[in-house]
Amino acid sequence: MADPELDHFWLDHFWAVVPAGGAGTRLWPLSRAAAPKFLLDLTGSGRTLLQATADRLAPLVDGRMLVVTGRQHRDAVLAQLDATDPEQVVAEPSARDSMAAIGLAAALIERRDPEAVMGSFAADHVIGDDVRFRSVVARAVAVARDDWLVTIGIEPTHPATGFGYIAAGEALSHPGAHAVREFVEKPGAAVAASYVTAGHLWNAGMFVARPGVLLNLLGAQDPGFAAALRGIAADPHTLEEVWPTLPRIAVDHAVAEPAAAAGRVAVVPGDFGWDDVGDFASLRDVVDGSGTELTVLGDPALVVAVDAGGLVVPHGRLVAVVGLDDVVVVDTPDALLVTTRDRVQDVKEVVATLKASRPDLT
Amino acid sequence: MADPELDHFWLDHFWAVVPAGGAGTRLWPLSRAAAPKFLLDLTGSGRTLLQATADRLAPLVDGRMLVVTGRQHRDAVLAQLDATDPEQVVAEPSARDSMAAIGLAAALIERRDPEAVMGSFAADHVIGDDVRFRSVVARAVAVARDDWLVTIGIEPTHPATGFGYIAAGEALSHPGAHAVREFVEKPGAAVAASYVTAGHLWNAGMFVARPGVLLNLLGAQDPGFAAALRGIAADPHTLEEVWPTLPRIAVDHAVAEPAAAAGRVAVVPGDFGWDDVGDFASLRDVVDGSGTELTVLGDPALVVAVDAGGLVVPHGRLVAVVGLDDVVVVDTPDALLVTTRDRVQDVKEVVATLKASRPDLT
Repeated sequence: MADPELDHFWLDHFWAVVPAGGAGTRLWPLSRAAAPKFLLDLTGSGRTLLQATADRLAPLVDGRMLVVTGRQHRDAVLAQLDATDPEQVVAEPSARDSMAAIGLAAALIERRDPEAVMGSFAADHVIGDDVRFRSVVARAVAVARDDWLVTIGIEPTHPATGFGYIAAGEALSHPGAHAVREFVEKPGAAVAASYVTAGHLWNAGMFVARPGVLLNLLGAQDPGFAAALRGIAADPHTLEEVWPTLPRIAVDHAVAEPAAAAGRVAVVPGDFGWDDVGDFASLRDVVDGSGTELTVLGDPALVVAVDAGGLVVPHGRLVAVVGLDDVVVVDTPDALLVTTRDRVQDVKEVVATLKASRPDLT
Repeated sequence: MADPELDHFWLDHFWAVVPAGGAGTRLWPLSRAAAPKFLLDLTGSGRTLLQATADRLAPLVDGRMLVVTGRQHRDAVLAQLDATDPEQVVAEPSARDSMAAIGLAAALIERRDPEAVMGSFAADHVIGDDVRFRSVVARAVAVARDDWLVTIGIEPTHPATGFGYIAAGEALSHPGAHAVREFVEKPGAAVAASYVTAGHLWNAGMFVARPGVLLNLLGAQDPGFAAALRGIAADPHTLEEVWPTLPRIAVDHAVAEPAAAAGRVAVVPGDFGWDDVGDFASLRDVVDGSGTELTVLGDPALVVAVDAGGLVVPHGRLVAVVGLDDVVVVDTPDALLVTTRDRVQDVKEVVATLKASRPDLT
């Protein structure tokens, strides 16, 4: 294996799969149906989340990357990636959840590279330390070559209630790797604390495996599903016809959970800093998690705060906030959101309301 | 006297004086230095506060109205009033508080109509019932003809701490009129409750008097001030030179308080609904004082509220508010305010900050 501290090392036969889906409705009005979260430079880094994900993986793959996205976003994804090979983007005719998306990528890679190991990484998450991330991925790839379905489990920084957890079991021969005893659902606050104490890891939905291993594990649960995916890969012209018949199911439920029960899943811990940036509270933590001051995501000269804390995302106009703690103000040219940190989850209710009255704003 | 229940009755020799000043900084970003409160249709009535004030007085005065305003607002005032006679607007070279403004109007009217009674009514207050207002003014004018300085005291609807109060004394021969025992400053909450119980009235700054009575009462305190005002009226060319030398003092302190101590002030109670619309809490009460729901001042289709109460003033864009009680959101093309009902007084701090950094927005 190459030195994991290098900025740039290719992992032979390693393929990156990047599912680019999800509306990000809790990040409205920044995230819209036509310009979802993964296409946005949410953190002000200068790169969109998709671009940052591709940048992070590129040093490992020598161009072996498939982005799976909705057909309506295909051109935007190609443009953001400066992709010269249009086959780098797999366009789904419709959204059918993560098993279909990742499974189709697996079936395509299986045909193109019999020695492949693939790793699936969402296009809309944020990683703190890309070099450490690549080092952990390299370790997971090594484990996956031994026919494990490998997940990368994030070492918790706090007892989060918004993520599922991974309970590790016995140690494997690969350094740091363990068998997965089980995946556990998002817990309440008290249970989350006990999970952290017990050494459980966050489930960030990162899976690394040989494509054939993944598809065979799926086939053990749903032979028709696996066969359908391999059929599309063998004859892409059948995509339109077959795709709408595929089950809508997450890869966690379709494969990871039953495979863990069967002792086929390994976990490699990751301490590279990770966040799914699911809502504005999470976004604020990613940008500036400190204290009670007001965080400005954008031009600070556009914000005047008097006894105010929270997050302000200005957009060209002056924003003045007076006497509010933990407020969230997000300005855009056609829509403005005002809420509090405690209620950021309910932003999706605004989007649900607008779907009926003002779909142009969703 | 004409029937006060008529919509339209002229009071002979009655002159309306409308001081149109004040920046309304607590109503930023609606109110700006270049477009202050009195020039705005704050309540969404279709008429600006100045226009509504003029509309309210017009049926009493047969054109006998003087608006006193800053020179920079002269043209806007003339345009809003559709004034055919430019002499209806008295332009102050600079702001020198209400005694100079009202006193100059008094001196001008004194020369033009020896039998005049004048009434001074701020250009930026809101009245609930114009017909009742005119009826009370007619009563005050009758008292003023007997050489009283008459104030119209508002019957309190709650123990407000934002207004000064009027303590009434002995009854006069005019029905409902009393001598004023004293003017008392804005009280704390407990004292305000005792004032309401004691029958004190709100001081709305409405004064009705013969111009000569007003000026002579001023002259009793400050002979030079009264002489200077009469001098300007006699020779308007001296305005530029004399105006900057006039004391900056409110009519309350210069005349009303000492005259009350001398037994020269009468009060007529008014129950026509009055508000000075000094801040966004007051504005909300004027527009829709009811309950904890969200009040929208503007197009309700532009606002989506989820568990939210308070006041939203939209401006073309959608405004979504989630999980905030008593929030105040005021949208304009170049500036946005987010605060709470409790903190509306502190909006002036935003303006003070912007005076240094972004005077174009103040």
